[in-house]
Amino acid sequence: MGDLFWPGDDRAGDHFTSASFLAVMVLLEAEWADVDLSGVDAERHLEWLENESESGGNPVIGLVELLREATGDTALHRGLTSQDVVDTALMRMAEAAVADLLADLDRIVAQLAELATEHRDTPMVARTLTQHAIPTTFGFRVAQWLTGVLDARDDVRRLRFPDQLGGAAGTRAGMVELGLDLPLDDLPWHTTRATVTRIGDALAGCTDACARIANDVLALGRPEIGELAEGSGGGSSTMPNKANPVLSVLIRRAALTTPQLAATLHLAAASQVDDRADGGWHAEWAPLRDLVRRTLVAVSQTDDLLDGLEVRPDRMAWTLAGAGDDVLAEQRALAKHAGHDPAPSYLGQAGAIIDAVVARSKETR
Amino acid sequence: MGDLFWPGDDRAGDHFTSASFLAVMVLLEAEWADVDLSGVDAERHLEWLENESESGGNPVIGLVELLREATGDTALHRGLTSQDVVDTALMRMAEAAVADLLADLDRIVAQLAELATEHRDTPMVARTLTQHAIPTTFGFRVAQWLTGVLDARDDVRRLRFPDQLGGAAGTRAGMVELGLDLPLDDLPWHTTRATVTRIGDALAGCTDACARIANDVLALGRPEIGELAEGSGGGSSTMPNKANPVLSVLIRRAALTTPQLAATLHLAAASQVDDRADGGWHAEWAPLRDLVRRTLVAVSQTDDLLDGLEVRPDRMAWTLAGAGDDVLAEQRALAKHAGHDPAPSYLGQAGAIIDAVVARSKETR
Amino acid sequence: MGDLFWPGDDRAGDHFTSASFLAVMVLLEAEWADVDLSGVDAERHLEWLENESESGGNPVIGLVELLREATGDTALHRGLTSQDVVDTALMRMAEAAVADLLADLDRIVAQLAELATEHRDTPMVARTLTQHAIPTTFGFRVAQWLTGVLDARDDVRRLRFPDQLGGAAGTRAGMVELGLDLPLDDLPWHTTRATVTRIGDALAGCTDACARIANDVLALGRPEIGELAEGSGGGSSTMPNKANPVLSVLIRRAALTTPQLAATLHLAAASQVDDRADGGWHAEWAPLRDLVRRTLVAVSQTDDLLDGLEVRPDRMAWTLAGAGDDVLAEQRALAKHAGHDPAPSYLGQAGAIIDAVVARSKETR
Amino acid sequence: MGDLFWPGDDRAGDHFTSASFLAVMVLLEAEWADVDLSGVDAERHLEWLENESESGGNPVIGLVELLREATGDTALHRGLTSQDVVDTALMRMAEAAVADLLADLDRIVAQLAELATEHRDTPMVARTLTQHAIPTTFGFRVAQWLTGVLDARDDVRRLRFPDQLGGAAGTRAGMVELGLDLPLDDLPWHTTRATVTRIGDALAGCTDACARIANDVLALGRPEIGELAEGSGGGSSTMPNKANPVLSVLIRRAALTTPQLAATLHLAAASQVDDRADGGWHAEWAPLRDLVRRTLVAVSQTDDLLDGLEVRPDRMAWTLAGAGDDVLAEQRALAKHAGHDPAPSYLGQAGAIIDAVVARSKETR
Repeated sequence: MGDLFWPGDDRAGDHFTSASFLAVMVLLEAEWADVDLSGVDAERHLEWLENESESGGNPVIGLVELLREATGDTALHRGLTSQDVVDTALMRMAEAAVADLLADLDRIVAQLAELATEHRDTPMVARTLTQHAIPTTFGFRVAQWLTGVLDARDDVRRLRFPDQLGGAAGTRAGMVELGLDLPLDDLPWHTTRATVTRIGDALAGCTDACARIANDVLALGRPEIGELAEGSGGGSSTMPNKANPVLSVLIRRAALTTPQLAATLHLAAASQVDDRADGGWHAEWAPLRDLVRRTLVAVSQTDDLLDGLEVRPDRMAWTLAGAGDDVLAEQRALAKHAGHDPAPSYLGQAGAIIDAVVARSKETR
Repeated sequence: MGDLFWPGDDRAGDHFTSASFLAVMVLLEAEWADVDLSGVDAERHLEWLENESESGGNPVIGLVELLREATGDTALHRGLTSQDVVDTALMRMAEAAVADLLADLDRIVAQLAELATEHRDTPMVARTLTQHAIPTTFGFRVAQWLTGVLDARDDVRRLRFPDQLGGAAGTRAGMVELGLDLPLDDLPWHTTRATVTRIGDALAGCTDACARIANDVLALGRPEIGELAEGSGGGSSTMPNKANPVLSVLIRRAALTTPQLAATLHLAAASQVDDRADGGWHAEWAPLRDLVRRTLVAVSQTDDLLDGLEVRPDRMAWTLAGAGDDVLAEQRALAKHAGHDPAPSYLGQAGAIIDAVVARSKETR
Repeated sequence: MGDLFWPGDDRAGDHFTSASFLAVMVLLEAEWADVDLSGVDAERHLEWLENESESGGNPVIGLVELLREATGDTALHRGLTSQDVVDTALMRMAEAAVADLLADLDRIVAQLAELATEHRDTPMVARTLTQHAIPTTFGFRVAQWLTGVLDARDDVRRLRFPDQLGGAAGTRAGMVELGLDLPLDDLPWHTTRATVTRIGDALAGCTDACARIANDVLALGRPEIGELAEGSGGGSSTMPNKANPVLSVLIRRAALTTPQLAATLHLAAASQVDDRADGGWHAEWAPLRDLVRRTLVAVSQTDDLLDGLEVRPDRMAWTLAGAGDDVLAEQRALAKHAGHDPAPSYLGQAGAIIDAVVARSKETR
Repeated sequence: MGDLFWPGDDRAGDHFTSASFLAVMVLLEAEWADVDLSGVDAERHLEWLENESESGGNPVIGLVELLREATGDTALHRGLTSQDVVDTALMRMAEAAVADLLADLDRIVAQLAELATEHRDTPMVARTLTQHAIPTTFGFRVAQWLTGVLDARDDVRRLRFPDQLGGAAGTRAGMVELGLDLPLDDLPWHTTRATVTRIGDALAGCTDACARIANDVLALGRPEIGELAEGSGGGSSTMPNKANPVLSVLIRRAALTTPQLAATLHLAAASQVDDRADGGWHAEWAPLRDLVRRTLVAVSQTDDLLDGLEVRPDRMAWTLAGAGDDVLAEQRALAKHAGHDPAPSYLGQAGAIIDAVVARSKETR
């Protein structure tokens, strides 16, 4: 699975593909009816189902027809409604994707913690609004990257992926008619979509955190600065000289698109009405898929980016030296006011803050 | 404070006005320098400050100049940077606004719990994709509204509003130079903005939940349906006959705009670079203000909407009767399959689900 | 080509698929080198190319490698840069898609003109803010639908799809070195992306116009109103009684997503920097693809929706009668003020406006 | 008029303020009734009106009450509906704002044409994906900026600002009842909002074009590059050494927010239903206001930015020299392939393209 319009898409593997969606829905119908559907090769009918899905507005009607025909078992799906199957399938797929995502985030966290520690005392110039400000360390910068990723991971960890079991209008009337007594701890959420919007918000938070790293690599990797570089730059179709920071470029790309996808999920949630929305529900599926896959790709690319990141302490030192006395102007002013000579260094709590962030990264949840 | 372009804006009171922003910033400077600035009438200079704010890109530089001039105390602000003041002021304002928001959400929760209980057994027709589906109760519908609000409130309750104290580049170098030893439990978040995006996401969740209610009032309040009505409809400038569902209209309006504001906060977060972003930081302030005020307004309007909501069980019963046997077609099919006569009612777990949601609404956090 | 996450996607045919993208790029390389590449089966390598595209950040580097290897012709692509190929391919694909789109829009325009004329005098009640207002005609309503589509079509007709030929940095240095003298009427637009954003804006305008129609069908097709109905409603997976307005639901769905895709194109344009953007360029491709396909689908569905639309003048008359004297309250007030008896009808210029809109629809461009 | 949350807001002057909105509405009511309302000090009642506007969902009902009371003339507003007044007022305000905007755009165009001509032969290195690519000229870069602004200006010039005169439901029934015969060349657009979305799209195009300039100033103004600088940088509240590129930062800020505002206008348009939308209409006003003011501010700041822009040809030459032979690698490869020695320069059609863009900038429309 790949996408010529989204280089790197194959990193998301089979998550949220049409084939996976179909497979999960078949599995859910099998679980519900307590029958073995592993012999049904639904994927062979994928194209038919894709086209058929329009007539009912969702893919379940065609699927049930197909499964009943293949098995001769008309009891399949009984008691469920299309939304039960689609929503639960989305959650199962999201849960699997988020498990992979968390594994990647964990790797990034470990890499960043190590990098921050390694460069705890590597001096560089801090930059605000693009201009030289005061001294800092590269470890402190990495601690900021790490904080962003930890915050994002916290939100991802908090996600829940409940089944949707409500029947035609959420009341579970069909289930009760069939003598089923479902537990009341997971309630239907057919028209209250925080379940979905929280996923979108948390994933957008991930690409925010990754882009914050990529932006620094892009800025500090400009040849005139040269303090960071991607380990293996991408080539050009015409310029033999180029080594492009391709991973950073592609990460940044993702972060320009995910917030609007998360917003679309909120707009869909805000369009809920009656006992099943007339468009708001249907508008969720593709944006959620794109959000999940793009986030998986961006996070995986960030993992690789850090893996190969070249840090150049010499260039950092050179820039800092070149920035000269100016970057100590604040210190001089403050020391003068306080009536003492400037301290020998001007790094404040940088080291202690690095240590605190690294310690946070090692907390078990 | 009101806004002719946003009817109802005055419900947000003084939250996040320019004057409040200024007052909080003065307070923060006073706290930091441990001086009394209550005698300084900064608001008199608000217009000057608004105009002056462009030259430094934020309002703090002009404010510090003004305060130092007014007091003769050049030690004011020492050790801080503009971002410390702006970010902390945003958090203080957000905290105050969210306190009011939670009070309104609590009122809505209480109203909805009562309404759901009152109409636990009020029959109405469930509608999916605008069409009659199966029987349900109005209490069950209200339980869905309530679930949405409870989910939104959970996210709002989880928000935190930390101070920002990092100095020029987040390292607290100036503070240390001045002999201050800040605690390490609240770390600088100058370039990691989950602090801000989480607020945006949670507030968009609130307008989602309110719009879900308003949409139902609008749909079920159409004269041909008439099952719900706003207590005191709005008039028309030309049609004496009109009683418009104005509150619902204005709530729905808000929910069409807040997701894009929350997305803007994510885009700003994803634009972080260096030790202070070159635009990403500045892009947060106005969208956050608008998100907060619009959410306060929408939630307050929802409170009023529920306060005056007219529920018409007779019309609900009439529609259900008119829907006829069709809405029991599913039940008949399932009963036939199960080999028994249809049960006398077809409400499934509606009552039990209502009870569970109402019980959830009464949990202390 | 279909998409289980976007029912109806197959209506967009081969437009903007990965395979089409690849085929157009091969064609462009063939045109540029003036060689016949029809014998190269690039599509066989599509998956390899999709995966390979990450290393250079776009699919062209791999493609050129593949083509040179297949043909042994190292002169292929010479003078071009990746962006020339990708951008020109996007424009060629967009031009083909827009041609189909315009054909569908023309059909819709013709249908609406006919419908407006047919129902020029079919009375119905006008509704504002969901409530009965004054009398109108269904033809007048259709004239509003038509105006929306005509406005959208005007914007689509104005689109241009220029080739991108700029070489490595837009200066055409490579072309000149190779002795080529390109005309100066179509200039490079490698970092000025109105070319792309205008497409996005125009397509969002199309889904706006289609949704405006679908919203009315959904509202007026509620069983309690019943003035409109989709010709062949969609079924339910569990309720035998349902006939859902599926086309309207799916059109509305699209319109909830396209504005954010158009916004993403603007954000990408606003991220342009240097002589090729570090992410802003790459963020365009997938959103443009989704915008184009979803608009094609929504417009085609609108065509079908109108094709099968059931209009029920009897129900319209019945509602209007039921609305009673109230809807003439404005007329009475105005007539009283003007000192004459109310005119026998209160339709104002409805007929003349319908005629004017229908006449506009028949203008050749 | 200023805004502490949006430094520079005062540049937008009185455009789209609540007071201006009110004044235009009073003027429209005066025009319609052909009476002199200049003696009515409506602004004195602005706060009352702002608060009152909620009860009818828009400010017109309160305004008409106020005007009728002040004048004793109950004929005021007769035949109009609230939407006529609000929509026409929005258009009048937009027209005035766009006139100022175009004047600023014209100034920017003139400045850029001059700058491109002045630096037609100023060598610099082209950068793609942040890395050195091939040689170019600063004039060529400016020609790209100019192309972006010209494209944006073309779209702004095409905007139209029609009055809205439709009465209660667009049919002009009230007008006809009163004996008025309105012309049919400007038809009501009460539920077809391309009128509004086109403004949003065109304004977002302006901030795109301005941000494209600002991004370059920010990147090339980094101290390690130093090829461009803002004439008068902004200061810092704590670092005496800082000269921040504040105008560029604030321009970039705007461009991060306007696309989502334009998207909101599309979402509002796509929510049109019946003869007046239940929220979609109301959601337009504030986002349109913000879009207009922010665009005015950003364009005015871009004018100032260019006014004071410091261009440093020596630094450009120094970077290019430092980039060395690498940036001619493409030329060497192409020349070798073509079988001749590399040409003495590698600027392709840069000069001719600059001339063509400058010529375009001088075309009268």
